[in-house]
Amino acid sequence: MKILLTLSYLGTDFSGYQVQKNARTVQGELNAAARSLFGYDCDITGCSRTDAGVHANMFCAAVTKKGESYLETHISEDKIPAAMNAHLPADVSVERAEWVSDGFHPRYDVKFKEYIYKIYNRPARNPFTEGRAWHITYAIDEGTIERMNRAAQHFVGKHDFSAFMASGSTVESTIREVKYAEVTKKGDEIVFKVAADGFLYNMVRIMTGTLVAVAQGKIAPEEIPCIISSCDRQRAGMTAPAEGLYLNRVVY
Amino acid sequence: MKILLTLSYLGTDFSGYQVQKNARTVQGELNAAARSLFGYDCDITGCSRTDAGVHANMFCAAVTKKGESYLETHISEDKIPAAMNAHLPADVSVERAEWVSDGFHPRYDVKFKEYIYKIYNRPARNPFTEGRAWHITYAIDEGTIERMNRAAQHFVGKHDFSAFMASGSTVESTIREVKYAEVTKKGDEIVFKVAADGFLYNMVRIMTGTLVAVAQGKIAPEEIPCIISSCDRQRAGMTAPAEGLYLNRVVY
Repeated sequence: MKILLTLSYLGTDFSGYQVQKNARTVQGELNAAARSLFGYDCDITGCSRTDAGVHANMFCAAVTKKGESYLETHISEDKIPAAMNAHLPADVSVERAEWVSDGFHPRYDVKFKEYIYKIYNRPARNPFTEGRAWHITYAIDEGTIERMNRAAQHFVGKHDFSAFMASGSTVESTIREVKYAEVTKKGDEIVFKVAADGFLYNMVRIMTGTLVAVAQGKIAPEEIPCIISSCDRQRAGMTAPAEGLYLNRVVY
Repeated sequence: MKILLTLSYLGTDFSGYQVQKNARTVQGELNAAARSLFGYDCDITGCSRTDAGVHANMFCAAVTKKGESYLETHISEDKIPAAMNAHLPADVSVERAEWVSDGFHPRYDVKFKEYIYKIYNRPARNPFTEGRAWHITYAIDEGTIERMNRAAQHFVGKHDFSAFMASGSTVESTIREVKYAEVTKKGDEIVFKVAADGFLYNMVRIMTGTLVAVAQGKIAPEEIPCIISSCDRQRAGMTAPAEGLYLNRVVY
Protein backbone atom coordinates (compact mmCIF):
# COMPACT_ATOMS: atom_id res chain seq x y z
CA MET A 1 0.00 0.00 0.00
CA LYS A 2 1.10 3.58 -0.64
CA ILE A 3 -0.25 6.88 0.65
CA LEU A 4 -2.07 9.18 -1.77
CA LEU A 5 -1.97 12.81 -0.69
CA THR A 6 -4.47 15.43 -1.83
CA LEU A 7 -2.90 18.85 -1.55
CA SER A 8 -3.01 22.44 -2.76
CA TYR A 9 -0.30 25.00 -3.37
CA LEU A 10 0.21 28.62 -4.27
CA GLY A 11 2.65 28.43 -7.19
CA THR A 12 4.02 32.00 -6.96
CA ASP A 13 7.24 31.20 -5.10
CA PHE A 14 7.85 27.76 -6.61
CA SER A 15 9.95 26.94 -9.66
CA GLY A 16 7.16 24.54 -10.60
CA TYR A 17 6.17 21.15 -9.21
CA GLN A 18 9.05 18.94 -10.28
CA VAL A 19 12.36 18.68 -8.41
CA GLN A 20 15.24 20.65 -9.93
CA LYS A 21 18.72 21.34 -8.65
CA ASN A 22 19.04 24.64 -6.75
CA ALA A 23 15.37 25.55 -7.10
CA ARG A 24 12.43 25.59 -4.71
CA THR A 25 9.86 23.07 -5.95
CA VAL A 26 6.68 21.55 -4.55
CA GLN A 27 8.05 18.03 -5.01
CA GLY A 28 11.23 19.04 -3.20
CA GLU A 29 9.24 20.32 -0.22
CA LEU A 30 7.08 17.18 -0.16
CA ASN A 31 10.21 15.01 -0.28
CA ALA A 32 11.77 16.79 2.68
CA ALA A 33 8.52 16.71 4.70
CA ALA A 34 7.94 12.98 4.00
CA ARG A 35 11.51 12.14 5.03
CA SER A 36 11.07 14.04 8.31
CA LEU A 37 7.69 12.48 8.99
CA PHE A 38 8.30 8.85 7.99
CA GLY A 39 11.96 8.75 8.97
CA TYR A 40 13.43 7.53 5.67
CA ASP A 41 13.84 8.70 2.08
CA CYS A 42 10.65 8.57 0.02
CA ASP A 43 9.61 8.87 -3.61
CA ILE A 44 6.87 11.38 -4.37
CA THR A 45 4.94 10.74 -7.59
CA GLY A 46 2.68 13.57 -8.70
CA CYS A 47 -0.44 13.55 -10.90
CA SER A 48 1.00 16.23 -13.13
CA ARG A 49 3.93 18.60 -13.57
CA THR A 50 2.99 22.21 -13.22
CA ASP A 51 5.26 25.05 -14.40
CA ALA A 52 6.75 27.87 -12.33
CA GLY A 53 4.01 30.19 -11.05
CA VAL A 54 1.16 27.75 -11.78
CA HIS A 55 -1.13 26.99 -8.82
CA ALA A 56 -3.06 23.93 -7.68
CA ASN A 57 -6.38 23.98 -5.84
CA MET A 58 -6.17 20.19 -5.98
CA PHE A 59 -3.14 18.06 -6.70
CA CYS A 60 -2.54 14.38 -5.94
CA ALA A 61 0.78 12.76 -5.10
CA ALA A 62 1.68 9.26 -3.94
CA VAL A 63 4.32 8.63 -1.28
CA THR A 64 6.37 5.43 -1.32
CA LYS A 65 9.58 4.29 0.31
CA LYS A 66 12.46 5.25 -2.00
CA GLY A 67 12.84 2.68 -4.76
CA GLU A 68 9.83 0.67 -3.54
CA SER A 69 6.15 0.52 -4.48
CA TYR A 70 4.91 0.77 -0.89
CA LEU A 71 5.13 2.88 2.23
CA GLU A 72 5.52 1.66 5.82
CA THR A 73 4.29 3.78 8.70
CA HIS A 74 2.42 3.48 11.98
CA ILE A 75 0.91 6.94 11.54
CA SER A 76 -2.81 6.60 10.77
CA GLU A 77 -4.01 8.20 7.53
CA ASP A 78 -6.24 10.75 9.28
CA LYS A 79 -3.21 12.06 11.20
CA ILE A 80 -0.95 12.36 8.14
CA PRO A 81 -2.28 15.71 6.72
CA ALA A 82 -1.66 17.71 9.92
CA ALA A 83 1.67 15.91 10.48
CA MET A 84 2.85 16.64 6.91
CA ASN A 85 1.69 20.27 7.18
CA ALA A 86 3.80 20.71 10.29
CA HIS A 87 6.84 19.96 8.09
CA LEU A 88 5.67 21.93 5.02
CA PRO A 89 5.93 25.68 4.26
CA ALA A 90 2.79 27.86 4.31
CA ASP A 91 2.32 27.87 0.52
CA VAL A 92 1.60 24.13 0.30
CA SER A 93 -0.97 22.22 2.32
CA VAL A 94 -2.02 18.57 2.53
CA GLU A 95 -5.79 18.28 2.84
CA ARG A 96 -6.24 14.48 2.85
CA ALA A 97 -4.28 11.23 2.91
CA GLU A 98 -5.54 7.77 1.99
CA TRP A 99 -4.08 4.31 1.47
CA VAL A 100 -4.11 3.08 -2.13
CA SER A 101 -2.80 -0.14 -3.65
CA ASP A 102 0.85 -0.64 -4.66
CA GLY A 103 -0.27 -0.68 -8.31
CA PHE A 104 -1.98 2.72 -8.18
CA HIS A 105 -0.29 5.42 -10.29
CA PRO A 106 -1.21 9.06 -9.60
CA ARG A 107 -0.50 10.13 -13.18
CA TYR A 108 -1.49 7.16 -15.37
CA ASP A 109 -4.66 6.34 -13.43
CA VAL A 110 -6.17 9.82 -13.84
CA LYS A 111 -9.57 9.66 -15.61
CA PHE A 112 -9.62 13.39 -16.20
CA LYS A 113 -8.18 16.63 -14.88
CA GLU A 114 -9.84 20.03 -14.72
CA TYR A 115 -7.92 23.28 -15.01
CA ILE A 116 -9.18 26.80 -14.50
CA TYR A 117 -7.59 29.93 -15.87
CA LYS A 118 -8.40 33.23 -14.11
CA ILE A 119 -8.39 36.67 -15.72
CA TYR A 120 -8.79 39.84 -13.66
CA ASN A 121 -10.55 42.31 -15.93
CA ARG A 122 -10.44 45.92 -14.80
CA PRO A 123 -8.34 48.98 -15.72
CA ALA A 124 -6.40 49.21 -12.43
CA ARG A 125 -4.54 46.20 -11.07
CA ASN A 126 -5.81 44.44 -7.95
CA PRO A 127 -3.21 43.83 -5.19
CA PHE A 128 -5.15 40.73 -4.12
CA THR A 129 -5.06 39.03 -7.54
CA GLU A 130 -1.45 39.91 -8.45
CA GLY A 131 0.29 36.62 -9.28
CA ARG A 132 -3.06 34.83 -9.08
CA ALA A 133 -4.79 35.98 -12.28
CA TRP A 134 -3.88 37.48 -15.65
CA HIS A 135 -4.61 41.20 -15.49
CA ILE A 136 -6.37 42.36 -18.67
CA THR A 137 -7.15 46.08 -18.60
CA TYR A 138 -9.56 46.57 -21.54
CA ALA A 139 -13.19 45.76 -20.78
CA ILE A 140 -14.43 42.33 -21.88
CA ASP A 141 -18.22 42.62 -21.96
CA GLU A 142 -20.95 39.98 -21.82
CA GLY A 143 -21.24 39.75 -25.62
CA THR A 144 -17.52 39.07 -25.84
CA ILE A 145 -17.76 36.38 -23.14
CA GLU A 146 -20.46 34.76 -25.23
CA ARG A 147 -18.12 34.75 -28.27
CA MET A 148 -15.26 33.32 -26.17
CA ASN A 149 -17.64 30.63 -24.98
CA ARG A 150 -18.65 29.75 -28.54
CA ALA A 151 -14.97 29.45 -29.41
CA ALA A 152 -14.33 27.25 -26.34
CA GLN A 153 -17.06 24.81 -27.39
CA HIS A 154 -14.98 23.91 -30.45
CA PHE A 155 -12.28 22.53 -28.10
CA VAL A 156 -14.69 19.86 -26.81
CA GLY A 157 -14.18 16.35 -28.21
CA LYS A 158 -11.28 14.14 -29.29
CA HIS A 159 -8.80 16.11 -31.40
CA ASP A 160 -5.15 16.32 -32.31
CA PHE A 161 -4.24 19.39 -30.25
CA SER A 162 -0.70 19.94 -31.67
CA ALA A 163 -1.64 23.52 -32.54
CA PHE A 164 -2.14 24.03 -28.78
CA MET A 165 1.18 22.54 -27.67
CA ALA A 166 4.36 24.53 -26.92
CA SER A 167 6.61 24.21 -29.98
CA GLY A 168 9.57 21.94 -29.41
CA SER A 169 7.64 19.58 -27.10
CA THR A 170 7.85 15.88 -27.79
CA VAL A 171 5.10 13.48 -26.82
CA GLU A 172 3.94 10.08 -28.10
CA SER A 173 0.45 11.18 -29.06
CA THR A 174 -0.97 14.70 -29.42
CA ILE A 175 -4.56 13.46 -29.35
CA ARG A 176 -6.55 14.43 -26.27
CA GLU A 177 -10.22 14.35 -25.40
CA VAL A 178 -11.66 17.56 -23.96
CA LYS A 179 -14.76 16.76 -21.89
CA TYR A 180 -16.01 20.29 -21.33
CA ALA A 181 -14.84 23.88 -21.73
CA GLU A 182 -16.56 27.02 -20.53
CA VAL A 183 -15.92 30.75 -20.07
CA THR A 184 -17.81 32.62 -17.34
CA LYS A 185 -17.62 36.13 -15.91
CA LYS A 186 -18.56 37.13 -12.37
CA GLY A 187 -17.81 40.72 -11.44
CA ASP A 188 -14.25 41.46 -12.54
CA GLU A 189 -13.20 37.82 -12.74
CA ILE A 190 -13.31 35.81 -15.96
CA VAL A 191 -12.78 32.07 -15.58
CA PHE A 192 -11.99 29.59 -18.35
CA LYS A 193 -12.64 26.05 -17.12
CA VAL A 194 -11.57 23.02 -19.13
CA ALA A 195 -11.38 19.28 -18.43
CA ALA A 196 -9.66 16.58 -20.47
CA ASP A 197 -8.23 13.08 -20.17
CA GLY A 198 -4.82 14.72 -20.47
CA PHE A 199 -3.17 17.97 -21.50
CA LEU A 200 -0.24 18.74 -23.80
CA TYR A 201 2.53 21.07 -22.66
CA ASN A 202 1.09 24.61 -22.23
CA MET A 203 -2.23 23.49 -23.74
CA VAL A 204 -4.52 25.41 -21.34
CA ARG A 205 -2.37 28.54 -21.53
CA ILE A 206 -2.40 28.47 -25.36
CA MET A 207 -6.16 27.82 -25.36
CA THR A 208 -6.56 30.86 -23.04
CA GLY A 209 -4.35 33.02 -25.26
CA THR A 210 -6.49 31.94 -28.22
CA LEU A 211 -9.73 32.82 -26.41
CA VAL A 212 -8.26 36.24 -25.59
CA ALA A 213 -7.45 36.65 -29.31
CA VAL A 214 -11.14 35.88 -29.91
CA ALA A 215 -12.05 38.59 -27.36
CA GLN A 216 -9.81 41.04 -29.24
CA GLY A 217 -11.46 40.15 -32.56
CA LYS A 218 -8.22 38.73 -33.97
CA ILE A 219 -9.66 35.22 -34.27
CA ALA A 220 -13.32 34.37 -34.97
CA PRO A 221 -14.97 31.58 -32.91
CA GLU A 222 -15.66 29.71 -36.16
CA GLU A 223 -11.93 29.58 -36.97
CA ILE A 224 -11.12 27.31 -34.02
CA PRO A 225 -11.83 24.02 -35.88
CA CYS A 226 -9.46 25.15 -38.71
CA ILE A 227 -6.78 26.07 -36.17
CA ILE A 228 -7.12 22.67 -34.50
CA SER A 229 -6.98 20.77 -37.81
CA SER A 230 -4.01 22.85 -39.03
CA CYS A 231 -1.85 21.31 -36.25
CA ASP A 232 0.11 24.57 -36.57
CA ARG A 233 1.14 26.29 -33.32
CA GLN A 234 1.52 29.57 -35.25
CA ARG A 235 -2.23 29.65 -35.98
CA ALA A 236 -3.28 29.60 -32.29
CA GLY A 237 -3.01 32.55 -29.89
CA MET A 238 -0.24 33.50 -27.50
CA THR A 239 0.67 31.46 -24.41
CA ALA A 240 -1.16 33.13 -21.51
CA PRO A 241 1.03 33.84 -18.44
CA ALA A 242 1.47 31.07 -15.86
CA GLU A 243 0.08 33.09 -12.93
CA GLY A 244 -3.60 32.66 -13.96
CA LEU A 245 -3.49 28.85 -14.23
CA TYR A 246 -4.79 26.46 -11.55
CA LEU A 247 -4.98 22.68 -11.57
CA ASN A 248 -8.47 22.52 -10.08
CA ARG A 249 -9.60 18.91 -9.94
CA VAL A 250 -8.15 15.44 -10.46
CA VAL A 251 -10.57 12.55 -10.97
CA TYR A 252 -9.48 8.87 -10.74
CA MET B 1 -8.46 71.73 -4.79
CA LYS B 2 -6.75 68.51 -3.74
CA ILE B 3 -6.79 65.01 -5.24
CA LEU B 4 -8.62 62.25 -3.36
CA LEU B 5 -7.32 58.80 -4.25
CA THR B 6 -9.32 55.61 -3.79
CA LEU B 7 -6.95 52.70 -3.46
CA SER B 8 -6.51 49.14 -2.20
CA TYR B 9 -3.55 47.31 -0.74
CA LEU B 10 -2.44 43.91 0.42
CA GLY B 11 -1.09 44.57 3.91
CA THR B 12 1.12 41.47 4.21
CA ASP B 13 4.44 43.09 3.34
CA PHE B 14 3.71 46.53 4.84
CA SER B 15 4.55 47.72 8.36
CA GLY B 16 1.12 49.32 8.34
CA TYR B 17 -0.23 52.41 6.59
CA GLN B 18 1.58 55.22 8.39
CA VAL B 19 5.12 56.36 7.53
CA GLN B 20 7.82 55.08 9.90
CA LYS B 21 11.57 55.33 9.70
CA ASN B 22 13.24 52.30 8.11
CA ALA B 23 9.97 50.49 7.43
CA ARG B 24 7.98 49.83 4.28
CA THR B 25 4.60 51.58 4.62
CA VAL B 26 1.70 52.34 2.29
CA GLN B 27 1.97 56.07 3.00
CA GLY B 28 5.69 55.94 2.24
CA GLU B 29 5.04 54.31 -1.14
CA LEU B 30 2.28 56.83 -1.95
CA ASN B 31 4.59 59.69 -1.01
CA ALA B 32 7.35 58.46 -3.31
CA ALA B 33 4.91 57.82 -6.19
CA ALA B 34 3.26 61.25 -5.83
CA ARG B 35 6.64 62.99 -5.81
CA SER B 36 7.66 61.16 -9.01
CA LEU B 37 4.35 61.87 -10.69
CA PHE B 38 3.73 65.51 -9.69
CA GLY B 39 7.36 66.55 -9.57
CA TYR B 40 7.47 67.95 -6.04
CA ASP B 41 7.10 66.77 -2.42
CA CYS B 42 3.52 66.03 -1.40
CA ASP B 43 1.57 65.36 1.79
CA ILE B 44 -0.57 62.23 1.81
CA THR B 45 -3.45 62.25 4.31
CA GLY B 46 -5.17 58.90 4.81
CA CYS B 47 -8.70 58.09 6.00
CA SER B 48 -7.35 55.76 8.67
CA ARG B 49 -4.18 54.17 10.03
CA THR B 50 -4.06 50.44 9.54
CA ASP B 51 -1.62 48.21 11.42
CA ALA B 52 1.06 45.94 9.98
CA GLY B 53 -0.54 43.06 8.08
CA VAL B 54 -3.98 44.68 7.83
CA HIS B 55 -5.42 44.97 4.30
CA ALA B 56 -7.62 47.51 2.54
CA ASN B 57 -10.14 46.71 -0.18
CA MET B 58 -10.93 50.42 -0.14
CA PHE B 59 -8.86 53.21 1.37
CA CYS B 60 -8.99 56.95 0.69
CA ALA B 61 -6.08 59.36 0.79
CA ALA B 62 -5.76 63.03 -0.18
CA VAL B 63 -2.71 64.37 -2.00
CA THR B 64 -1.62 67.97 -1.48
CA LYS B 65 1.54 69.93 -2.14
CA LYS B 66 3.79 69.62 0.92
CA GLY B 67 2.68 72.11 3.60
CA GLU B 68 -0.24 73.37 1.47
CA SER B 69 -3.95 72.55 1.28
CA TYR B 70 -4.01 72.16 -2.49
CA LEU B 71 -2.35 70.27 -5.34
CA GLU B 72 -1.27 71.68 -8.69
CA THR B 73 -1.02 69.44 -11.73
CA HIS B 74 -1.87 69.40 -15.42
CA ILE B 75 -2.54 65.65 -15.33
CA SER B 76 -6.28 65.03 -15.68
CA GLU B 77 -7.94 63.09 -12.87
CA ASP B 78 -8.86 60.14 -15.09
CA LYS B 79 -5.18 59.67 -15.99
CA ILE B 80 -3.91 59.81 -12.40
CA PRO B 81 -4.72 56.20 -11.32
CA ALA B 82 -2.72 54.54 -14.11
CA ALA B 83 0.07 57.12 -13.74
CA MET B 84 0.29 56.57 -9.96
CA ASN B 85 0.20 52.79 -10.41
CA ALA B 86 3.18 52.99 -12.77
CA HIS B 87 5.14 54.38 -9.79
CA LEU B 88 3.67 52.08 -7.12
CA PRO B 89 4.59 48.49 -6.18
CA ALA B 90 2.24 45.60 -7.06
CA ASP B 91 0.70 45.34 -3.57
CA VAL B 92 -0.95 48.76 -3.71
CA SER B 93 -3.19 50.04 -6.47
CA VAL B 94 -4.99 53.33 -7.12
CA GLU B 95 -8.47 52.70 -8.53
CA ARG B 96 -9.81 56.25 -8.81
CA ALA B 97 -8.79 59.90 -8.41
CA GLU B 98 -11.08 62.91 -8.03
CA TRP B 99 -10.74 66.60 -7.24
CA VAL B 100 -12.11 67.65 -3.85
CA SER B 101 -12.15 71.04 -2.13
CA ASP B 102 -9.18 72.39 -0.10
CA GLY B 103 -11.30 71.99 3.05
CA PHE B 104 -12.01 68.29 2.55
CA HIS B 105 -10.41 66.02 5.17
CA PRO B 106 -10.14 62.29 4.37
CA ARG B 107 -10.28 61.31 8.05
CA TYR B 108 -12.56 63.84 9.74
CA ASP B 109 -15.12 63.93 6.92
CA VAL B 110 -15.77 60.16 7.00
CA LYS B 111 -19.48 59.41 7.69
CA PHE B 112 -18.77 55.77 8.39
CA LYS B 113 -16.26 53.04 7.66
CA GLU B 114 -16.90 49.36 7.14
CA TYR B 115 -14.40 46.66 8.10
CA ILE B 116 -14.57 42.96 7.36
CA TYR B 117 -12.71 40.26 9.25
CA LYS B 118 -12.14 36.95 7.45
CA ILE B 119 -11.75 33.56 9.14
CA TYR B 120 -10.74 30.45 7.18
CA ASN B 121 -12.43 27.56 8.93
CA ARG B 122 -11.11 24.13 8.00
CA PRO B 123 -8.68 21.65 9.61
CA ALA B 124 -5.88 22.04 7.04
CA ARG B 125 -4.51 25.46 6.18
CA ASN B 126 -5.20 26.96 2.74
CA PRO B 127 -2.14 28.29 0.86
CA PHE B 128 -4.38 30.86 -0.86
CA THR B 129 -5.71 32.40 2.37
CA GLU B 130 -2.44 32.40 4.33
CA GLY B 131 -1.86 35.98 5.52
CA ARG B 132 -5.35 36.89 4.27
CA ALA B 133 -7.60 35.25 6.87
CA TRP B 134 -7.38 33.88 10.42
CA HIS B 135 -7.09 30.11 10.20
CA ILE B 136 -9.36 28.43 12.77
CA THR B 137 -9.13 24.64 12.60
CA TYR B 138 -12.09 23.45 14.72
CA ALA B 139 -15.43 23.39 12.90
CA ILE B 140 -17.74 26.37 13.47
CA ASP B 141 -21.21 25.16 12.45
CA GLU B 142 -24.35 27.04 11.41
CA GLY B 143 -25.77 27.06 14.95
CA THR B 144 -22.56 28.62 16.22
CA ILE B 145 -22.65 31.27 13.48
CA GLU B 146 -26.17 32.08 14.63
CA ARG B 147 -24.89 32.55 18.21
CA MET B 148 -21.98 34.72 17.00
CA ASN B 149 -24.51 36.78 15.08
CA ARG B 150 -26.70 37.25 18.14
CA ALA B 151 -23.62 38.43 20.03
CA ALA B 152 -22.67 40.82 17.20
CA GLN B 153 -26.11 42.47 17.33
CA HIS B 154 -25.29 43.74 20.81
CA PHE B 155 -22.45 45.83 19.31
CA VAL B 156 -24.96 47.88 17.28
CA GLY B 157 -25.75 51.33 18.65
CA LYS B 158 -23.95 54.15 20.44
CA HIS B 159 -21.77 52.77 23.25
CA ASP B 160 -18.61 53.42 25.19
CA PHE B 161 -16.41 50.77 23.59
CA SER B 162 -13.42 51.05 26.01
CA ALA B 163 -13.65 47.30 26.68
CA PHE B 164 -12.89 46.83 22.99
CA MET B 165 -9.87 49.13 22.83
CA ALA B 166 -6.22 48.02 23.11
CA SER B 167 -5.12 48.75 26.67
CA GLY B 168 -2.78 51.72 26.91
CA SER B 169 -4.47 53.61 24.07
CA THR B 170 -5.39 57.22 24.64
CA VAL B 171 -8.23 58.91 22.83
CA GLU B 172 -10.53 61.86 23.61
CA SER B 173 -13.76 59.90 23.54
CA THR B 174 -14.30 56.14 23.57
CA ILE B 175 -17.91 56.45 22.44
CA ARG B 176 -18.61 55.15 18.95
CA GLU B 177 -21.78 54.34 17.03
CA VAL B 178 -21.89 50.94 15.35
CA LYS B 179 -24.35 51.04 12.44
CA TYR B 180 -24.47 47.33 11.68
CA ALA B 181 -22.61 44.13 12.55
CA GLU B 182 -23.08 40.72 10.98
CA VAL B 183 -21.44 37.28 10.87
CA THR B 184 -21.93 35.11 7.78
CA LYS B 185 -20.47 31.81 6.60
CA LYS B 186 -20.07 30.75 2.98
CA GLY B 187 -18.23 27.48 2.45
CA ASP B 188 -15.06 27.59 4.56
CA GLU B 189 -15.05 31.38 4.93
CA ILE B 190 -16.58 33.17 7.89
CA VAL B 191 -16.91 36.94 7.55
CA PHE B 192 -17.59 39.43 10.33
CA LYS B 193 -18.70 42.75 8.84
CA VAL B 194 -19.05 45.87 10.97
CA ALA B 195 -19.60 49.55 10.22
CA ALA B 196 -19.26 52.52 12.57
CA ASP B 197 -18.71 56.28 12.57
CA GLY B 198 -15.25 55.52 13.92
CA PHE B 199 -13.23 52.73 15.50
CA LEU B 200 -11.00 52.63 18.58
CA TYR B 201 -7.53 51.10 18.38
CA ASN B 202 -7.86 47.32 17.66
CA MET B 203 -11.65 47.53 18.10
CA VAL B 204 -12.60 45.22 15.23
CA ARG B 205 -9.90 42.70 16.15
CA ILE B 206 -11.05 42.60 19.79
CA MET B 207 -14.70 42.30 18.66
CA THR B 208 -13.64 39.37 16.45
CA GLY B 209 -11.71 37.73 19.30
CA THR B 210 -14.83 38.13 21.47
CA LEU B 211 -17.06 36.55 18.81
CA VAL B 212 -14.62 33.63 18.59
CA ALA B 213 -14.86 33.28 22.40
CA VAL B 214 -18.64 33.11 21.86
CA ALA B 215 -18.06 30.36 19.26
CA GLN B 216 -15.93 28.46 21.80
CA GLY B 217 -18.66 28.79 24.46
CA LYS B 218 -16.42 30.91 26.70
CA ILE B 219 -18.70 33.94 26.43
CA ALA B 220 -22.51 33.85 26.00
CA PRO B 221 -24.10 36.21 23.45
CA GLU B 222 -26.15 37.74 26.28
CA GLU B 223 -22.98 38.74 28.13
CA ILE B 224 -21.93 41.26 25.47
CA PRO B 225 -23.94 44.20 26.93
CA CYS B 226 -22.29 43.56 30.36
CA ILE B 227 -18.85 43.43 28.74
CA ILE B 228 -19.52 46.72 26.94
CA SER B 229 -20.81 48.47 30.07
CA SER B 230 -17.90 47.13 32.18
CA CYS B 231 -15.50 49.26 30.09
CA ASP B 232 -12.96 46.56 31.09
CA ARG B 233 -10.64 45.29 28.35
CA GLN B 234 -10.05 42.12 30.41
CA ARG B 235 -13.69 41.09 30.01
CA ALA B 236 -13.62 41.04 26.20
CA GLY B 237 -11.95 38.34 24.09
CA MET B 238 -8.44 38.18 22.64
CA THR B 239 -7.20 40.50 19.90
CA ALA B 240 -7.64 38.55 16.65
CA PRO B 241 -4.54 38.52 14.39
CA ALA B 242 -4.05 41.40 11.95
CA GLU B 243 -4.00 39.22 8.81
CA GLY B 244 -7.80 38.69 8.70
CA LEU B 245 -8.72 42.39 8.86
CA TYR B 246 -9.74 44.48 5.83
CA LEU B 247 -10.84 48.10 5.66
CA ASN B 248 -13.66 47.45 3.19
CA ARG B 249 -15.57 50.68 2.59
CA VAL B 250 -15.24 54.37 3.40
CA VAL B 251 -18.33 56.56 3.08
CA TYR B 252 -18.16 60.39 3.04
